[in-house]
Amino acid sequence: MSEKRAIVLLSGGLDSATVIAMARAQGAAVHALSFRYGQRHAAELDAAKEIARANQVTEHQIVDIDLRQFGGSALTDDIDVPKGRSAAEMAGEIPITYVPARNTIFLSYALALAEVRGIRDIHIGVNAVDYSGYPDCRPEYIAAFERMANLATKSGVEGDRAIRIHTPLIDLTKAEIIQRGTDLGVDYGATVSCYDPTPNGAACGECDACRLRKKGFADAGLPDPTRYA
Amino acid sequence: MSEKRAIVLLSGGLDSATVIAMARAQGAAVHALSFRYGQRHAAELDAAKEIARANQVTEHQIVDIDLRQFGGSALTDDIDVPKGRSAAEMAGEIPITYVPARNTIFLSYALALAEVRGIRDIHIGVNAVDYSGYPDCRPEYIAAFERMANLATKSGVEGDRAIRIHTPLIDLTKAEIIQRGTDLGVDYGATVSCYDPTPNGAACGECDACRLRKKGFADAGLPDPTRYA
Repeated sequence: MSEKRAIVLLSGGLDSATVIAMARAQGAAVHALSFRYGQRHAAELDAAKEIARANQVTEHQIVDIDLRQFGGSALTDDIDVPKGRSAAEMAGEIPITYVPARNTIFLSYALALAEVRGIRDIHIGVNAVDYSGYPDCRPEYIAAFERMANLATKSGVEGDRAIRIHTPLIDLTKAEIIQRGTDLGVDYGATVSCYDPTPNGAACGECDACRLRKKGFADAGLPDPTRYA
Repeated sequence: MSEKRAIVLLSGGLDSATVIAMARAQGAAVHALSFRYGQRHAAELDAAKEIARANQVTEHQIVDIDLRQFGGSALTDDIDVPKGRSAAEMAGEIPITYVPARNTIFLSYALALAEVRGIRDIHIGVNAVDYSGYPDCRPEYIAAFERMANLATKSGVEGDRAIRIHTPLIDLTKAEIIQRGTDLGVDYGATVSCYDPTPNGAACGECDACRLRKKGFADAGLPDPTRYA
């Protein structure tokens, strides 16, 4: 019976699928927001659409943004995605798959949608544990964005510092995320994490995202429903 | 002989034409950044291209973003643009022409370009005097964005808090802006401020932007080169 509404950034990956399920479990009506940002594959967005449907969202906005125009990342350029690295090798460096200012751009669109719809809560599945190399996944970055957002908008001017950026996964390990989602009935078989899937949508199993995901299911002691190549 | 490089947000209006001329006068190589964001008319972008050429920019990126998808503003919706208001009537309220989170989205793209090109300085022609009604034109908003930007990026992580958002017009009246630009040789006849130009590109003369512009030339005691309908 709640009137609570939330914007959820939905990539189609494991993390955002968990975030949307958590928001629904709290009784929020979800406005999902995804981006077509020059990904080399469409599997992730197909997954986002499926997850949005499964969570009975109020709306699912897919915004076209073209970061390829600027270049600068493996996810949108023709640089090879690194394969076969251990979690230790990934830790403490900024991955080549980092997209410049990506979360800032994504959250800015979320802020625009929030202001237009009169929504105060924005949920994003950033995680500071497994992706410590991404500067825009750190709690201090999120806090600074929230502060800026409240100064950027009418609600801020009107004294109602109401925009909140929620990061329910920020301190969780991948195994803990998978456990929470499983408890909420998330179908992880419908999610896509792989940076470099095959043309028919199977995960490569060897990129950083696949290895973190595999390890997460193993650590959680849960079966991994991912279709690997 | 300077190696200084700067990103300048270029709308094609009077303010950004002045900012780009100021950056060039400081010896900066300019990377201009404009947006096709669902404006109802193309005159502004045509002006941006002309201004970029006249300032011999290193590059001029025009990014497609579609805020119309979300709705919510006279500049991108079919709401009537207010006409015939005095400066006093415009002051102290948020204009209907406010685009939600627009400067946040624009600056986020500028941040992405800055990071990809290794540029530290971003110039934007916001002004807190004549447009006091826009929350994202206030100095405290800009300061918060700058702080967030340095946490969002590799340069921030690496301890080099180097991204700077420059707002050279923020405390200037329209007359002062016009005087500075005129001293630098800006051709204001090539700029477009009008919210509602005629199909052949003449300014309406009656919207808020036209009235502020007219008043600026009058206060500066300089001839107004604008082609009015």
